[in-house]
Amino acid sequence: MTETSTAAPIETDAHIDTLVAAAVAAGDRWAATDPAERERIVVAVADALEADADRLIPIARQETNLAEPRLRGELKRTAFQLRLLARVAAAGDHLDVRVDHPDTDWPMGAPRPDLRRTSVPLGPVVVFGASNFPFAFSVAGGDTAAALAAGCPVIYKSHRGHPELSAATAETVTAALAAHGAPDGLFATVSSQAEGRAALAHPDVKAGAFTGGIPGGRALFDLAQSRPEPIPFYGELGSVNPVFVTEAAAAGRAQEIVDAFIGSFTLGQGQFCTKPGLLLVPAASSFTDLLRAAALPAGHRLLNPGIAQGHHQVREELAGRADVSVLAGGGGEVDPPLATLLSTDVDTLVAHFDELFVECFGPTALVVVYRDEAQLLDVARALDGQLTATLIAEDDDAIVGPLATILTRKAGRLLWNQWPTGVSVTYAQQHGGPYPASTASGTTSVGTAALNRFVRPVAWQGFPQHLLPGELRDDQTLPAPRRVDGHLEAGSRE
Amino acid sequence: MTETSTAAPIETDAHIDTLVAAAVAAGDRWAATDPAERERIVVAVADALEADADRLIPIARQETNLAEPRLRGELKRTAFQLRLLARVAAAGDHLDVRVDHPDTDWPMGAPRPDLRRTSVPLGPVVVFGASNFPFAFSVAGGDTAAALAAGCPVIYKSHRGHPELSAATAETVTAALAAHGAPDGLFATVSSQAEGRAALAHPDVKAGAFTGGIPGGRALFDLAQSRPEPIPFYGELGSVNPVFVTEAAAAGRAQEIVDAFIGSFTLGQGQFCTKPGLLLVPAASSFTDLLRAAALPAGHRLLNPGIAQGHHQVREELAGRADVSVLAGGGGEVDPPLATLLSTDVDTLVAHFDELFVECFGPTALVVVYRDEAQLLDVARALDGQLTATLIAEDDDAIVGPLATILTRKAGRLLWNQWPTGVSVTYAQQHGGPYPASTASGTTSVGTAALNRFVRPVAWQGFPQHLLPGELRDDQTLPAPRRVDGHLEAGSRE
Repeated sequence: MTETSTAAPIETDAHIDTLVAAAVAAGDRWAATDPAERERIVVAVADALEADADRLIPIARQETNLAEPRLRGELKRTAFQLRLLARVAAAGDHLDVRVDHPDTDWPMGAPRPDLRRTSVPLGPVVVFGASNFPFAFSVAGGDTAAALAAGCPVIYKSHRGHPELSAATAETVTAALAAHGAPDGLFATVSSQAEGRAALAHPDVKAGAFTGGIPGGRALFDLAQSRPEPIPFYGELGSVNPVFVTEAAAAGRAQEIVDAFIGSFTLGQGQFCTKPGLLLVPAASSFTDLLRAAALPAGHRLLNPGIAQGHHQVREELAGRADVSVLAGGGGEVDPPLATLLSTDVDTLVAHFDELFVECFGPTALVVVYRDEAQLLDVARALDGQLTATLIAEDDDAIVGPLATILTRKAGRLLWNQWPTGVSVTYAQQHGGPYPASTASGTTSVGTAALNRFVRPVAWQGFPQHLLPGELRDDQTLPAPRRVDGHLEAGSRE
Repeated sequence: MTETSTAAPIETDAHIDTLVAAAVAAGDRWAATDPAERERIVVAVADALEADADRLIPIARQETNLAEPRLRGELKRTAFQLRLLARVAAAGDHLDVRVDHPDTDWPMGAPRPDLRRTSVPLGPVVVFGASNFPFAFSVAGGDTAAALAAGCPVIYKSHRGHPELSAATAETVTAALAAHGAPDGLFATVSSQAEGRAALAHPDVKAGAFTGGIPGGRALFDLAQSRPEPIPFYGELGSVNPVFVTEAAAAGRAQEIVDAFIGSFTLGQGQFCTKPGLLLVPAASSFTDLLRAAALPAGHRLLNPGIAQGHHQVREELAGRADVSVLAGGGGEVDPPLATLLSTDVDTLVAHFDELFVECFGPTALVVVYRDEAQLLDVARALDGQLTATLIAEDDDAIVGPLATILTRKAGRLLWNQWPTGVSVTYAQQHGGPYPASTASGTTSVGTAALNRFVRPVAWQGFPQHLLPGELRDDQTLPAPRRVDGHLEAGSRE
């Protein structure tokens, strides 16, 4: 295994062995814990985080440069997410329960046995936190919430962008788990990259989850897949989130679109994975004039010096090109950066796609002018995997049907006259798309379907009732929706 | 890309480019085809296969050494599987449809938008066939059926074990697809390993499926994961399928268990991926005497010379060990081999697990004698991933609760007083388990959940009704079960 820090490998591995052994033991108890009890304990973590807000928020402000209202909102979202996932998990919604009764006339040609299928927790999960949501994609964020609620222990690798907040949050989480009777070792943290890699490589770890950039995420994905036993690795790696503005929309409401676009790409200083980084607008419109005249918001410092340097470098590379012009803002400051709008035309974009269609994490976006709406289809076809793709259009635009069809193959979420920043935690959310948006495009890291990532199905054939999991018994001692002989039945908690 | 045949790489790649381009074009049309129409066409393939039975069965007999009744049964199962998957796919059962209406009071802290999520086909799939089920895991087998029914084109890599049957079956499939209006290029075959690898590496291919052995399967998995865009690879690689006989079961019905075990491990000359390859029995029982005295069935030739040689080699390595004895059968014939029962004790097994707990594809099994039922837990803990694990036990055996708990972490299907050979195609089937049983333990290659492998979720936010897929519209022009604002609603075809 490649060590990337100066930590002595042998010490690290012994430490990781201890953490993982504790996680395995805790996982056995946690998986066997009644789902309603697991819900109670995860909700207690949510309550503890909210109760500790006044201790946590100042540390977060200090370490991330994010404003207090944003951080308070994010902490509320984080607590809500824990409660929602705990409730849905306790309802057995993610178990995909199926019960087939014996059928001697089953037309397969052989009798159908009594076969009952539910899902079981995977086991220990290593979660790698992100820097840009110090609560919602961090210690007690979506991946941790989904793994715990689904019945898995978590080894959390802190992001170096907010080490004190991570330690303080972990303290709250650990204390709440202990106070409410969770097994020891259910949740642990590590802080070095070497420890994170050692944990991901450990034979008793059964999944990894990650939010961050492409190089780091791909390296971890490769590690997880090259293990003697490969394991699922749910990585969210990067996205440009293109926005397609049709001619009719541009003609009818250019100023409104400009204002909303500026609000979205500069939200949180452009440090959202769903930031709209590319806006396609018709040449025959007032768009570029409006954008040139727009007041860009004054920005605050970025999350950390590494992100500021990364943003500066990508922005300067783009702005320095002969085929790209600076439309508004910019000026070369590293941190805080001024919001920057760059511009090019669609032929240039298509000719140099790999150089121009890049994520610039921070308050910079590229405006691309098209001559003909049909060019939107060319751009859509050229896309790699995206978290989102947005249509700003009118209901009767002819282009939107074909465009949406192509975009369903490229993105996890399509938006219609709304903006991609702001990812609601709901039942129907899909936050994930084809690579590199995600390393597992069939999954989501936000919303209740995020639970599905941390269980796998098991079928019981011919078992006596008393040995079956509650959701598989005839008297269904645990409520869950079930498909019985092919017919769906809602769970008793529905 | 590594070429493993003598085919000129450039020619191969050009050929593959053509096939994949046709598959992409066909896939666009197929994905846009009404699900009921897709069902009709896939059912037509099933009908055509059954109509062609008298042409196909003799070729299969010639190439596989399998008996006619077995082959006729398998063809029936194959046709049934196509029909069942087509019907379930048309019902939208695998789409995991979710509809969230806007909610300004959503307790996340921000209003919930109108968000609707369904699933879309992945795109072209490369399917690598197996030798041991020349119909059910071959050209028109489970993976092809699931991919087509889910809306994906298929490029099928034939198994060299039955080339003429593969060509004849592909002819039937292609003719039926064409006659019933499927888009050209929806289904194509390749026959060399180099072509199969080239197809799997092609950027426009979006998934792979495989049934076979560990070395070949792992090489393809590694290829799929190391692509610039990694893609899902659903490989089923190998399984020993241990059977745990408790003391009470052995005391009460030893002869019955012996007879059933012999029937199961010699079924199809032991060439099932679910063959019970290891039987754990108590020392204090008449088991070994009964097994020694048992009449083992006379066997026919194995599927092909490579399999015969592989079986012979593993059997001789095991039988040649000082700590393994030959209990019954054997004799060293390569093909047809005589059924062979080998024997050792549980301490030896645990001490040399990696050498003794191996798949021996053919009519050979290892009987392992234990002194104490608690040793069954040690063996269960030592297992790697399995397709199945079987308990032959009594309802009031104290060991079975703890044993089953461990086995749920190791296997995809647990059986109770039934035998693992015979995999029913049903709603609740789970054929797949932790690695190396599967490369994707959250999935199954048999049963209706096999459809889930070939779609990925997409969310539509704020879209007007006329641009939504039918299953997401308020008037639901396509029937499917849906979760609406968190509450499950059965589809109109339920």
